Parts: sequence; structure tokens; C-alpha cells
Amino acid sequence: MKTKNIIITKVNNSSFYSNVQDCIVNESPLQIILTYGTTTQKKTEPLSVTMRTPDDDFHLVTGFLFCEGIIKNASDILSLKHIDAEKNTLLVELSPDVIFNSDEKKRNFIASSACGFCGKTINDVSAQNISTSINNEIKISAFTLYKLPSLLRTSQSLFTETGGAHAVALVSTNGEIIQINEDVGRHNAMDKLVGAMLNKNALPLSDYILLFSGRLGYELVQKAVAAGISVICSIGAPTSLAVEVAQQNNITIVGFLKNESFNIYCCGQRIIQS
Amino acid sequence: MKTKNIIITKVNNSSFYSNVQDCIVNESPLQIILTYGTTTQKKTEPLSVTMRTPDDDFHLVTGFLFCEGIIKNASDILSLKHIDAEKNTLLVELSPDVIFNSDEKKRNFIASSACGFCGKTINDVSAQNISTSINNEIKISAFTLYKLPSLLRTSQSLFTETGGAHAVALVSTNGEIIQINEDVGRHNAMDKLVGAMLNKNALPLSDYILLFSGRLGYELVQKAVAAGISVICSIGAPTSLAVEVAQQNNITIVGFLKNESFNIYCCGQRIIQS
Repeated sequence: MKTKNIIITKVNNSSFYSNVQDCIVNESPLQIILTYGTTTQKKTEPLSVTMRTPDDDFHLVTGFLFCEGIIKNASDILSLKHIDAEKNTLLVELSPDVIFNSDEKKRNFIASSACGFCGKTINDVSAQNISTSINNEIKISAFTLYKLPSLLRTSQSLFTETGGAHAVALVSTNGEIIQINEDVGRHNAMDKLVGAMLNKNALPLSDYILLFSGRLGYELVQKAVAAGISVICSIGAPTSLAVEVAQQNNITIVGFLKNESFNIYCCGQRIIQS
Repeated sequence: MKTKNIIITKVNNSSFYSNVQDCIVNESPLQIILTYGTTTQKKTEPLSVTMRTPDDDFHLVTGFLFCEGIIKNASDILSLKHIDAEKNTLLVELSPDVIFNSDEKKRNFIASSACGFCGKTINDVSAQNISTSINNEIKISAFTLYKLPSLLRTSQSLFTETGGAHAVALVSTNGEIIQINEDVGRHNAMDKLVGAMLNKNALPLSDYILLFSGRLGYELVQKAVAAGISVICSIGAPTSLAVEVAQQNNITIVGFLKNESFNIYCCGQRIIQS
């Protein structure tokens, strides 16, 4: 369930309306448990806990494992299943071919979460992946971008219901939404999107625009680098580190995207006037 | 530095204005290193890395340690100092009186961060602290709350500069802002506020309203529980788990606070008509 129904009091000026039914965004913990190793030497260990909006856990976990470099393809996952009645614990079995170094990774991941950064050491922040699949040929018209805020807004069904969810959309260069995902945590929304596209065998995503409903921080750019994205647009502001990482990876960053204006923070060669 | 200046391209309709100076919110990693133990047996170990807006690191770390239950008073910290040229690594020395169980806590904290949840196990989510300092006597007028959105907005200096920062304010029951903190991460803003008030020896904060600029998730309510807050107001939406934890702790939650309307999600007995 993406939402929960509760009874609230609505207050307007001096009027109190009690017992009003309302719908709020569901936030629940998801524990990821990993089975890995060769056929003769299998291990099962907890990997991570994240606060997420339930409903698309398989894509969330697939995208998370991909963005963290644990898997390269959807086929690196043998099985995914919830192992508790509440569906808050997910067991992932990796293919025996996947080399997962528990000693090296686990410390960083045992406590990792939605925020996409947690679970890293300070060295991981400097040692950024460099994207190898950037598209230098695509050109996107400013007028295509101007259409995106209202297109995104009308596609955000969970936000429409609850007012409390982030959205990430994958958009073609002519302005069509290919994929959209929502979650209480924006990093989860991004993982869900990457997982869905990986399952369609559609990575790297170098021919698409990535569109965020909110602000753009470091960890979202890191996930975009992993997915091979060349252009990131955000309705809100980017942070300093988001721009730095994008610049290092030759990724275009557009921020404060509105119906007839935006800012280009770096690598603006892909944005054209008409 | 809370902000960074960069050169951007501003696009408005079909006009591209290049070489425009702009100011964006600073996002940098802070590593917390902890020295703890008795005088004869001191240990120094990394505790956590968080992405934060620099400038108020001492309050941030003080509030973080308090909200996580590692310290009870400001005097539990003997010293705080940056130990690198970039001021991204902070050494905290705990008083020998503080009992810090590294084996138990470290695994949960080594990777913990701004998101306020990361670093926890799934059991930590169910095992919530119950606040013991809730104030059942305070009454707050709806008309006091209506004034808060614009008061908060005019007090958010970092947001005004960058458009990319969250704010948390502590407000008296007659609607005055006592303390305000801003950060690229809302959990950091909350930690900074709690740290600042702990240094003023002003905890528990049971006589105040806590006001958030954005949405309200589980981990912010958990920090509010630790600080003894009785009323939380948010400009945005609360999540399901935020409301559940607040209800368990008899904390009032107001969401979608606007100039002449809001929703009461739980424990509405403290909100009155005039």
C-alpha cells in the first residue's frame, strides 16, 4: 500500500472540522537480506534498512544494488521475495557469478538507507565513479524543458493523493515521460526507476533526461552517474556537491525548472534555444 | 561557508544569459570521530559521516549525539575540534563519565548520517523511545499558527540566498521564533537546533512548538521525542510513520500549515480556536 487512510481534523480560519477522512503517504522500513556466494559456500546476511513507500520493492532493491555497484544486470539476481507477513523484509539471492566482498562492502551497507549516502565512508565521497556512457550528441530544446514541470505534476499520482512524495521521471529528448516513480524518499524513487529500467534491459540511460520533483543533492547525482544519465533537470535547487560531481562526469544540470525559465549549472552544451 | 558562488547560465524564454553569478547551498561531508572511555582506557574511532551545510558543526554534532542517546548534557562533551584543513573532520572527546558501548552502538552508527534513520537496524524502528517530558497543559491558538508560515519564510536566510535549504524553528506558544537552523539536510537542521538549545541548558523543549519548513518524516519525530517536544508543525505533509510515532508519544502533529488553514493529524487537544 502506497498510502494510509486516517481520520484528521481540518482547520480553516476559526472552524474546526473533526473526523475528516484523509490519505497520507505510507512510510515503512524495508530490511534487505542478501544471499550470496558460490554454490558450495553460500552466506545470508542483512545488507541494509531503508524507509520507503511500499509497493515497488523489487525494483527498489534491484536499482539499489545496481547503483551501489553490487550487480551489473537484472540476471545477477536469482530471486527476490518478501519473507515476513508485513512484507517489510526482502530476501535477495544473488547469482553465484556475482562477486560480493562482504568484508569490504558490508560495513558500508549494513546501515545504508534511502538517503543514498549513508553507509559510506568519507573516502567514498571523494572516490566517485566516472560515467563511461555519457551522450555528447543529444541536444534538448529549452521549449521541451518548459513543458516538463506541468507534465511531471500531472503524472505524480501519489503526490496528488498525499502531498507527501517525491517523484523521479525518465524523459525522452522530445519531452515524453518514459518512466515515473514516486516514494517518500527521493533516493528510493530513483532506485525504483533504475531497477525498472534495468529489468527492461534499458541501461545505460544516456539518451534520456532525468527529472526530479524537488532539490538535487550529491547522492542523486551519484545514482545518475551509475545509470549513465547525461542530463539532469530539477524543479528545485541543486547543491554545491551535486554540481561538482556532475561537472566531473560531464553531466548537464538544469535547476529551478519552470514553465518559461531555468538555470543551467554545468555542461550546458546540450541545451539549445529552439 | 554556508554557500558557494558559481557562474551559471540563466535561461528565460528564448534568451540565454551566460556568465551570471549565482549562489548555491554548500553540501560537504562531515566525518565525526569519537574519543571515549575511561582515563586509563581511551579509544578513538570514526562514528559517522553526514552530508551537511558547514558553519555550525559543533551544534550539529552535539545535537546528533544527544538525539542518538549517546550524551545527556552538553558537559558530556569535553572538547570538539576540526582536525583537517578543510574542516570536514571533527574530533569529539566524550567525558570519561559517559558510558559508550562501542560494540553495541558502533555498528549502528559507523554509517549513520543526516537522514537520521540510516545506521539503525529494523528493530530500532519498533523500539521507540517514549518521551517523558510531554507538556499536556499548553494550548496554542489556531491564529498563532497561521502567522508562522510567513514568519518562518522571512527568517530563512540561507533559503532566501540559495532556494536549497531546509529550516527548523523553535517557536514559543505565543508565536515567537526562539531559535532557527538551516541545512541542506533537514535532519542536520534539527540536530543543530537541539545542539544549540542543549548548550543553553534549555532541554527538554516541552514548552515549545517545533516548526519544519518541509515534510515531516519518521526520523524527525524521533529526534523531537528525544528533545521532549510536545507540538510539531510542518509546512508540508507528514508521513504515516511520523503520525504513528507522534501518537504513541502524545505529540501533536499539525501539517500543511498555511496562512489560514491546517490539518491536525493527532493529539489535537493542544490546539484551540482562539
